[in-house]
Formats: sequence, structure tokens, C-alpha cells
Amino acid sequence: MSDNKKTMIVFSGDLDKAIAAMIIARGAAAMGNEVTIFFTFWGLNLLRKPEKVNVKKSFLESMFGLMMPRGAKKAGLSKMHMGGLGTRMMQYVMKTKNVPTLPEMITEAQEFGVKFIACTMSMDIMGIKEEELLSGLEFAGVATYLGNADEANLNLFI
Amino acid sequence: MSDNKKTMIVFSGDLDKAIAAMIIARGAAAMGNEVTIFFTFWGLNLLRKPEKVNVKKSFLESMFGLMMPRGAKKAGLSKMHMGGLGTRMMQYVMKTKNVPTLPEMITEAQEFGVKFIACTMSMDIMGIKEEELLSGLEFAGVATYLGNADEANLNLFI
Amino acid sequence: MSDNKKTMIVFSGDLDKAIAAMIIARGAAAMGNEVTIFFTFWGLNLLRKPEKVNVKKSFLESMFGLMMPRGAKKAGLSKMHMGGLGTRMMQYVMKTKNVPTLPEMITEAQEFGVKFIACTMSMDIMGIKEEELLSGLEFAGVATYLGNADEANLNLFI
Repeated sequence: MSDNKKTMIVFSGDLDKAIAAMIIARGAAAMGNEVTIFFTFWGLNLLRKPEKVNVKKSFLESMFGLMMPRGAKKAGLSKMHMGGLGTRMMQYVMKTKNVPTLPEMITEAQEFGVKFIACTMSMDIMGIKEEELLSGLEFAGVATYLGNADEANLNLFI
Repeated sequence: MSDNKKTMIVFSGDLDKAIAAMIIARGAAAMGNEVTIFFTFWGLNLLRKPEKVNVKKSFLESMFGLMMPRGAKKAGLSKMHMGGLGTRMMQYVMKTKNVPTLPEMITEAQEFGVKFIACTMSMDIMGIKEEELLSGLEFAGVATYLGNADEANLNLFI
Repeated sequence: MSDNKKTMIVFSGDLDKAIAAMIIARGAAAMGNEVTIFFTFWGLNLLRKPEKVNVKKSFLESMFGLMMPRGAKKAGLSKMHMGGLGTRMMQYVMKTKNVPTLPEMITEAQEFGVKFIACTMSMDIMGIKEEELLSGLEFAGVATYLGNADEANLNLFI
């Protein structure tokens, strides 16, 4: 185990939880940690490119793709979403307080050297293809996660 | 602390979170870890037998029992449940991809030696009796959890 | 790393998750651990004084303040809230089983020496002022959390 490694599983695609994850990741990276984030299930949606990408999908995969938010900019609050009103209020308040947006936080985290891993099993189930996701990702499964977690001294499930 | 012990608290009874927990548990067990899962609150519903069991309950306990899903097969998605439609879509997709169902994953995890502990305090509050739960469980409280967590190098709350 | 330090991030303001956190915190403290809880985002609502406190707020901060539950007594279940009915049922059942209420658990945890830290960045975003929160808190950000987590052998995100 190493004192300067951290992992997070980002299972949630909610705006608020993703912000919490990015603040922890960026803070830990700034303090000299190697941070690895595994994006799985709804968390994968945070990594989707905002524009439609032409890839071959089954009917159900296309349906899932349409129903889920395409990218971090579309993420909503886990509470008080209120048809988008609460989410927009939160985004507005963050802007007035000079807090970066979630997409900016994600870019920053990558620039700070935080390693992003997309869970391949979730991608398969949800029909998300590599071309639909941001660049700079790695692709791996649970064994890689467990190997990273074994070396880390902080492991969170978000 | 041991490098090959892991614990999870499964608080959620949601299909997607339970799948994530079982994939981690099974992966860790396959890599030689002793894995202990504490099922608490809504997570207990994952361990309920699918059929009705005749046990003596107070009126409120019976109400809770009726309102909560009976067993892993009835678990729904935390997002996009859509009155059951999204959940059935997810289950259908998993089947087409040859991913085991959640009840199958739970059985497999037990066969792989993952230890399942049902939280007795939650059982008491929710009025769930031992006879209503799957076989092969242990029953314990927070002190047992903390003892296990102290020896583990990965502890997640799901 | 120390074997007798634990941290939790309480991100959720839900009654059930807060109860789980307090049971773990109290159990760990009773077993001789130093427990630190970081309250962030919706979790901050658990620390709000139940009465209205006159502080200067912007219009949006006042809106957030009105929309979010004021204190642990107002916290609702994450599932089966059912317009408050499920939450009241749970609270009633807990009372009949002699389980303390959430506000009592919070007071007890503080008496047991559990350290409560309110996340200053979340306070800023949500417009929550120190005067609106319970006494006995500390105020800090992610660096303090990470410093504590580095010394702990159990770190949960709830």
C-alpha cells in the first residue's frame, strides 16, 4: 500500500456527486497523489462527448444512448433537480461564486494527471463505444480497479 | 490490516448498485480475497426470499414488508426505472450480453466464498425475520462490521 | 496510517443514510476510534439549526435555504419517502423499538467525541452561514479531509 495513491469509483452520473468526486480528485492530485477514477454505470455518461457520434448500435443500445445524458454538461442534481430548474440554479450559483463548471473540473482533473478509466463491462451493457467518450481515457475492468485499490490508501465509491 | 481482505456495506437495494457490488465482490474473491458484505437498510431486501414466508409481524412491520421489494429479482434501477420499463430493458440487455442476472450473481458470490452478513439492527427496524432471508447468511451488527473493516484494505459503502 | 482513525464524508442529507453514518460513527467512537465526519452538499442540511437564523443572504441563497430541509429532524428517507408518509412510518417504528431519533444520534455522536467538520466550499455554494449550523463544528475544506483520510484506516463516502 502506498500513502499517495487514491482511487474512486464514480458510479453516479449526478452533477453534485461528480462535483464532489472532482474536488477530491483535484485536491488529492494537487497534494502529490496518484489518483485513479473508475467511471462505471451512470458515471460513464459524464465522459460522453457532448455531440452525437456515429457508431453502430443495436436498437436497445441506441435507446439507452438517447435516454441517458450525453456528457457532464447535461448532468443533473441527485436532489432538487426539479425538471432542471434546481440544476440550473446550482450551475448559476457556482458561476457567480467563480467555481468551475463540471466539464471544466473534468478537464482540469485530467490536466492534473488524474487517471480516468472507463469500465468496459458497463460500456458493453450500456452500449457505449470508445469513440463516444472523451479522449485521454483508459479502458479496463474490475481486476484493474482492484489492483489499483490494493495499492491505494483511500478508496471511495461515489 | 491484511492485503487480501475487503468489506462492503450494501446499503442500497437498487439493481444497478447491487450489480456493481457483486461484480467487485466476485472479482475480489476470484483474486484470492476474503470478502465480507454487510447488507443493511434497503440492501436487506436483496436477501429476501422471493416467496412469502409466514412469520409473526406487527402491523407496521407487515406494511414495510409489503412495500419493499421481496428479493433481488424485484430490485429496480436507481435511475431510469421508469415504472419498471428501464429496469426490464436493462435486464433484457444483460441477458443478450450473457451477463448473469442479479440473483445469479448473488448465488455465485456465495459460492465463491463471499461472506454475507445481514445487519441485525436494520432487520429489527424493518421487521425482517431470519426465516425470510436466504440461507447461508450470518447475522451481526456494527461492531462486527468495524472489526472486519479494521482488517481489510478496501472498504466501500454502496 | 493509524488503526484507530476513521473518516466519513456525509454527502447525503437523507434520513436513512444519516442514520447509517451515525451508527457507524458512534460504534467506532465507542470502540476507541477517533472519528471525523465531513458534512458536504446535502449532508450540511443535517447540521442546520431547526429554527430560522437571521443572516444576510443573496436572493438565490435564500431560495436554496428555503428549499432544503432545515436540520436533521426534517430529513426524509432516500426511498419510500412517499410525501413524508414512509419517513414518518420509519420514525414511528424506530421510536417503538427504542432507537434514538436522528437528532439524538447526532447529539450523542458529538458527545462521544466524533469530530464534525462542515465543508466550507459547500457552505459557500449553498449559501449556508456558520450561524445557521449547530455548535461544536469545525470548518474546513478538501485538504483537511485528505489529511485526515491519509491517517485513517476506514474512509467511507455516504
